[in-house]
Amino acid sequence: MTDINLPAVLAEVEAAFAEYERALVTNDVPVLDRLFWDSPHTLRYGAGENLYGYDAIRAFRQGRPAVNLEREITARAITTFGRDFAVANVEFRRAGSERTGRQSQTWARLPEGWRVVSAHVSLMG
Amino acid sequence: MTDINLPAVLAEVEAAFAEYERALVTNDVPVLDRLFWDSPHTLRYGAGENLYGYDAIRAFRQGRPAVNLEREITARAITTFGRDFAVANVEFRRAGSERTGRQSQTWARLPEGWRVVSAHVSLMG
Repeated sequence: MTDINLPAVLAEVEAAFAEYERALVTNDVPVLDRLFWDSPHTLRYGAGENLYGYDAIRAFRQGRPAVNLEREITARAITTFGRDFAVANVEFRRAGSERTGRQSQTWARLPEGWRVVSAHVSLMG
Repeated sequence: MTDINLPAVLAEVEAAFAEYERALVTNDVPVLDRLFWDSPHTLRYGAGENLYGYDAIRAFRQGRPAVNLEREITARAITTFGRDFAVANVEFRRAGSERTGRQSQTWARLPEGWRVVSAHVSLMG
């Protein structure tokens, strides 16, 4: 547990994070769904909603209009703990918005691969 | 990594979470400081600030007025992964406020004990 940012683990999480970000801005819902842990324990606090469980998160994604998803990441910090756990935090800005967004994800390596087990997105101010 | 919510581990994290919450509403800064990981990787996105590193978080706490910290927790979900990792998420409301707050913490068992390694607090809407 004291092995912070082992290079091989960090590379895996960076790749998973990049795959998620690409899916987010292109609204690739199947990839977004796959990268979240399929569990009632999975949780996503969004800019305007609190979603408990994989099914609620999935339903939200399917109902969301696929517009204005493009964003610029302005700060980024990924940290891994041992071989199976990581946190990924970014600040972002959408075109035409003055507000700073923040996205926090906790990732776990599960038998099915790296998955987001908890997420929190908010706009500051 | 597939051992979700082992009772003994969950009990430890519940206790650490309760200690943090008690310290928060009483502004017990030494306890708050102790329960965050002392590392430049530690990160806290707050309602109105983005803090990178233990030192920045500590400085913020020392500068914060100790008023109106009381809050009611209205929803709560703690999940542990294996023996060394956990996420703790709550919704809360402060007296006199209509807005729903959300607090997400990622906890890791480090040699020094259970510590918050990443946190995100926001007000919805």
